[in-house]
Amino acid sequence: MHSYAIGVDLGGTNLRISAVDENGTLLEKTTLGTEVSKGRDFVIGEMTDAIRTLRDKLRGTGELRGIGIGVPGIIDMDTGLMRESPNLPGWSEYPVRAEIEKRLGTPVILENDANAAALGEKWLGAGRDQDSLCMFTLGTGVGGGLVFNGKIWHGNNGMAGELGHTVVEPEGHPCGCGGRGCVEQYASATAVVRMAHEAIASGAAPELKRAAETHASEFNSRVVYQLALQGDKPAQDIYRRVGRALGIVITNMINALNLPMYVIGGGVSSAWDAFAPTLLEEVQARSFIYSVTTPPATLRTAPRKTTVITRALLGSDAGLFGAAKLPML
Amino acid sequence: MHSYAIGVDLGGTNLRISAVDENGTLLEKTTLGTEVSKGRDFVIGEMTDAIRTLRDKLRGTGELRGIGIGVPGIIDMDTGLMRESPNLPGWSEYPVRAEIEKRLGTPVILENDANAAALGEKWLGAGRDQDSLCMFTLGTGVGGGLVFNGKIWHGNNGMAGELGHTVVEPEGHPCGCGGRGCVEQYASATAVVRMAHEAIASGAAPELKRAAETHASEFNSRVVYQLALQGDKPAQDIYRRVGRALGIVITNMINALNLPMYVIGGGVSSAWDAFAPTLLEEVQARSFIYSVTTPPATLRTAPRKTTVITRALLGSDAGLFGAAKLPML
Repeated sequence: MHSYAIGVDLGGTNLRISAVDENGTLLEKTTLGTEVSKGRDFVIGEMTDAIRTLRDKLRGTGELRGIGIGVPGIIDMDTGLMRESPNLPGWSEYPVRAEIEKRLGTPVILENDANAAALGEKWLGAGRDQDSLCMFTLGTGVGGGLVFNGKIWHGNNGMAGELGHTVVEPEGHPCGCGGRGCVEQYASATAVVRMAHEAIASGAAPELKRAAETHASEFNSRVVYQLALQGDKPAQDIYRRVGRALGIVITNMINALNLPMYVIGGGVSSAWDAFAPTLLEEVQARSFIYSVTTPPATLRTAPRKTTVITRALLGSDAGLFGAAKLPML
Repeated sequence: MHSYAIGVDLGGTNLRISAVDENGTLLEKTTLGTEVSKGRDFVIGEMTDAIRTLRDKLRGTGELRGIGIGVPGIIDMDTGLMRESPNLPGWSEYPVRAEIEKRLGTPVILENDANAAALGEKWLGAGRDQDSLCMFTLGTGVGGGLVFNGKIWHGNNGMAGELGHTVVEPEGHPCGCGGRGCVEQYASATAVVRMAHEAIASGAAPELKRAAETHASEFNSRVVYQLALQGDKPAQDIYRRVGRALGIVITNMINALNLPMYVIGGGVSSAWDAFAPTLLEEVQARSFIYSVTTPPATLRTAPRKTTVITRALLGSDAGLFGAAKLPML
């Protein structure tokens, strides 16, 4: 009989709950719409109901090691307070962990969702043969997570890993964080769409203009990627900017931290072909590393001290697996 | 009877050797001119002779814990090879550690000089009450060192901490590392002088022009600082650029690593008054931290989770103490 853990990934649109055993085998997975608009108490209620249901269902099948929950926000690890939560209005400064624990009657581990995704990729994904890695999750925003020697690096008050808010253009686009030119302003899905609208406004991107009109509110980073694949120069330029921004930030991380692996996940990472060449050019030109490989093919065969820059392997499940791993560390 | 260690700091102009006991008390200190121009073998000979002399002198007074040596270059920690050494021509790709060990007949610990300085400040300087810190050494170049939980963070192959080569201006001044716009191009003594010459060339810096003519080859970052103190606007602007570059890089480190302390040492740090205000403005505007203090005054009284940005306390001895600490970790 295996032991298992419950992992929760709370997103802006989905609430997903899983049971994963100690070997990383997915035992159960449930997806609920989050209905964030119904408010914090409603969402926490849905979550705790679903956790209880899963726990009851698996009772007797193995030892429950604990419950890990990934949430989109900055968490004070000491208090379990959500400090900032741009995608969950009304959750800031709320004692999320304490409230969940009260309702479940058991301790839980609360973690930033991008940190959980980094841990998931370390455990079962691209980083499964590495001790340490740095992961970027390119979604609505740009999340980051650092795993050092198998554990999430939290820093002084749990705010480490906010790689989306490291600077690539000091006088660049204003960022929601109060800064300017953060990588989130160049490498998120939101940024891709903004850059597309900027290109359209410049009058030099007729195909993007047509696509924006055709798709209307469905015009997204995926549409821009499709145009780039079809050879549209303005769309390709946008993904070159994505690659350049990521290349600069990864250079900074390489020169500062010299980690063996940098993993790129999240929705925008599916446009890897369109941004990776520029990313690697930047890293080769700017960083101190001697060789870069871009697997998956060479993941297990790369020389021991090679720096690897690669796509994530677990897709949207990275955070779910990472959350489940938290109580098993 | 105390135990002690021998610490060596090899610079471009000085070779310094110390004996330090386990409590951080300096027992002996010798400074030799390095005479780098006489070549690698000569310098290593001087160093090993001086180490032997010191070891013999202290024989019988305590247990020698080991020998730590800080050198200006990137070291492969596995092999003890010097990978890059801009200030020591002819030392690159040389098995420095093996050669020193052969001549002394005993193991030594070789370390990057900026890493050693960071460890010194952690042990006996600004960071003595912190577990982790990030240190910048502003000299001819900009060195960096990361101490996590009391130990130097080396990364995958000993190249971590090259903070001087993280990017602040993607299209900025070309850097010796092959990149562009590295912080070293804006916050080193060399950069201050270059920016002064740029200001002079623009025709808008008459006082700097006069000073450059008066001091000729002695025109350095200290002269520019003196002018800034006297209210010369172009000189003040140069130090604002220093502060801005450091502010951006420290923001990146805060958002990525969330360390409790950022320490600034090296010769240029004596111009703290001229660059610190801009540095702190940048950090406040861009980073996720909630409060910054700038001691020394509050070093021991800062609230536990405050982020501290401060000057180094040990001056040029930081690297010497740090090198001595290496065998005592």
